[in-house]
Amino acid sequence: MIRIALDAMGGDYAPGSVVEGAFLAYQKKTDDFKITLVGEKEKIEKELLRLNLRNSFFTIENATENVRMEEIPTEALKEKKNSSIAVGTRLQKENKVDAFISSGNTGAVMATSLLTLGRLEGVARPAIATCLPTEKGVVVFLDVGANAECKAINLYQFGVMGSIYASHVLKKEFPKVGLLSIGEESTKGTEIVQEAHKLLEKGPVNFVGNVEGTDVLKGTCDVVVTDGFVGNIVLKFTESIDGFLTSLVHKRVKQSLLFRFGAFLLKISLRDLRKVLDYAEYGGAPLLGVNGVSIICHGKSSPKAIQNAIKVGVDMVKEKVNQVIQEKLANNNNLIRG
Amino acid sequence: MIRIALDAMGGDYAPGSVVEGAFLAYQKKTDDFKITLVGEKEKIEKELLRLNLRNSFFTIENATENVRMEEIPTEALKEKKNSSIAVGTRLQKENKVDAFISSGNTGAVMATSLLTLGRLEGVARPAIATCLPTEKGVVVFLDVGANAECKAINLYQFGVMGSIYASHVLKKEFPKVGLLSIGEESTKGTEIVQEAHKLLEKGPVNFVGNVEGTDVLKGTCDVVVTDGFVGNIVLKFTESIDGFLTSLVHKRVKQSLLFRFGAFLLKISLRDLRKVLDYAEYGGAPLLGVNGVSIICHGKSSPKAIQNAIKVGVDMVKEKVNQVIQEKLANNNNLIRG
Repeated sequence: MIRIALDAMGGDYAPGSVVEGAFLAYQKKTDDFKITLVGEKEKIEKELLRLNLRNSFFTIENATENVRMEEIPTEALKEKKNSSIAVGTRLQKENKVDAFISSGNTGAVMATSLLTLGRLEGVARPAIATCLPTEKGVVVFLDVGANAECKAINLYQFGVMGSIYASHVLKKEFPKVGLLSIGEESTKGTEIVQEAHKLLEKGPVNFVGNVEGTDVLKGTCDVVVTDGFVGNIVLKFTESIDGFLTSLVHKRVKQSLLFRFGAFLLKISLRDLRKVLDYAEYGGAPLLGVNGVSIICHGKSSPKAIQNAIKVGVDMVKEKVNQVIQEKLANNNNLIRG
Repeated sequence: MIRIALDAMGGDYAPGSVVEGAFLAYQKKTDDFKITLVGEKEKIEKELLRLNLRNSFFTIENATENVRMEEIPTEALKEKKNSSIAVGTRLQKENKVDAFISSGNTGAVMATSLLTLGRLEGVARPAIATCLPTEKGVVVFLDVGANAECKAINLYQFGVMGSIYASHVLKKEFPKVGLLSIGEESTKGTEIVQEAHKLLEKGPVNFVGNVEGTDVLKGTCDVVVTDGFVGNIVLKFTESIDGFLTSLVHKRVKQSLLFRFGAFLLKISLRDLRKVLDYAEYGGAPLLGVNGVSIICHGKSSPKAIQNAIKVGVDMVKEKVNQVIQEKLANNNNLIRG
C-alpha cells in the first residue's frame, strides 16, 4: 500500500480543486494507494461534504498554518512550522507516508523538502523536472528553477536523473538525453556546458549531444538538460505563449469578418493548446534527487492535474526511482573518476 | 546620401530574394540612400534582368567567393578573403559605405564585423539585438548569440545600447528596460545578473528591474536584456512555436470533422502567426557596439524582411546611433567608477 500525502491548502483553488483531484485519483485508481489530505481539518471536511464524499475515503492530517503563494520561502520555513507544507513533508520524513504532493508555494516546497528530507546519496543538487509537450509526445525538461547556477557535475546528474524518470515513470525506452546549448557541436555554449557534455558522453544515458532552443518543442529528444536559470526562463516563456496567441487572435477577430466567423473554432483550438501547454496537466514536477518523493504542482492546478500528480507520485514510489538514481549515480561517480 | 552595402549572396533564397528586397526598399524610399549589391557580378546582373530592373538602380561590387550557411565562421574568415561578407565589410571599413546588411552565415558576419570594424570606444562586447513580437508591439531582445558568457558590465552595456536602439530606431519614448531573471526581486538570479541589476539601476536607462520568462511576450517592457546563451535559446525556442502549433492543429484536424471544417481558417491564422513570430520581418538584427553598422538577417529572409533591414540600416546611420552609444557609455563608465 503506497501512502500519498496531499497538501490540501496549496494553490489558487485549494482546497476545492485539490480534494476533487484526490477523489478523481481515487475513483480511477489501478494501484493500491491511500491518500492523506494535509491542511485545516475543518475546511477539508467542509469540502468533502460539499463533494458528498465520505470522510473514510481519505485520512486528514491537521495543519493549522498556510504558506501564501507570494511568501518568501525561507521566512515561511522559519516561521510556519505547522504549515501544510511543513506537516506533509514531516509525515514523509517520519515514514508515515511515501510521497508528498503540493501545489503551494514552489520555493517553500523545495526548501522544506531539501531541509527536511535531505539529498539522496551521491546527488550534489536536486532538480525540478517538468514535462513539456512536443510535436512527438512529452519531453522531461530539467532543471526549471531549483538551481540558478550549476556546475558541470550538476548538469550531468540532472541528465541521469531525468533519464531514469523518463524511463521508469513515463515508460520511454532508452530515453534520448540532450544538453541545451547554442549549437550542436560539443564546443558550443558556456564552459560549464562544454564540460557537462564530456561527462554526459561517458554517463549511463543515451546521450544525443547538444540540442538547441528549436529542439525542445520539436521533441528531438526525451530529456532536455539545462540549469535552473535557463530552464525557468524557458518554462515561464512557454506559459506565456497562450496569452500571446489569444491576444493575437483577438486583434485578428476585430480586423476581419472572416476571422470573426472563425473565432469560435480558434477559441476551441486555443483552449486545446492551453491544455497542451499547461505543464501541470502532466502531473506536476518532481524534485528529483531528494531523499523522498516530493512533487510540485502548478498553483493553478486543475483537479485533473492533481490526479495526474498523484499518479506520478505513486509510480515514483512503485518504480523505486530514488533507488535507481542512487545506484546509477554511485556507479557513475566511479566511472567519472576512472 | 546614406550608402548601404547589401550582401546579395547570403541566405537561402539569394540572390533573388535579396535583390527583390533591395528593389522594394528603393521603390518605397523616403530617405536619400543608395544601395551597393555585393556578390558575384554575373549572378546579380542576371537577377536584375529577371526582375526587369535597370542596373543603374544599384551599384554592384564584385565578390568572387561565398560563405556557406553551415561553414565554420573562423575558417571562412581565414580562407575566404573575397567572400561577399568580407568584401561588404571592407567597403564599410574603407568608408565607401555606411552600413552592411547580410542574411548570410550569422557567425561569419559577426566575426568579420568584429575583426574588420572593431568595437566602439567604451563598448566591452557587442551584442546582437533582435526584435520579438509581443502583446503590445515589439520588444528589443539582446544578446541573442554574440556572447555565450557575459559579465555584469556586458549586460549593463547591452541594456544601454538596446535602450538607444529602441528610442532612436524604433521611436519608443523612454523605453522600459528589463533584466531577464528568475524572479522580480533584485536578489534573484545568478550572481552576474544580480550585479548587472545594480549597474542598470544607476545607468542612463529607464530600468524597470528584473523581468521573467513570462514578460517577454507580454510586452512588459521595451528592451529585455540577457546573455547570448539564454537569448539564443529563447530566440530559437520562439522560432519553433510555429511548427509545434502547426503539428498540433494537424493532429486536431485529423481527430474531428469540426476541425477539418475550420482547418482553412486555422491555417490562415497560423500563417499570420508565423509572420508575427518571424523576427526577420522586423528588419534584421543589428550587431550593436561595433564601430560601424552591421545588420544580420535571418537566412530565410523574404524580400520584405530585406526591405525592412535596409530601413533599419538607414535609420541607424541617420540617427547616429553609434555616436549616441559612445556618448552614453563614456558618461556612464564614469558614473559606475564614481
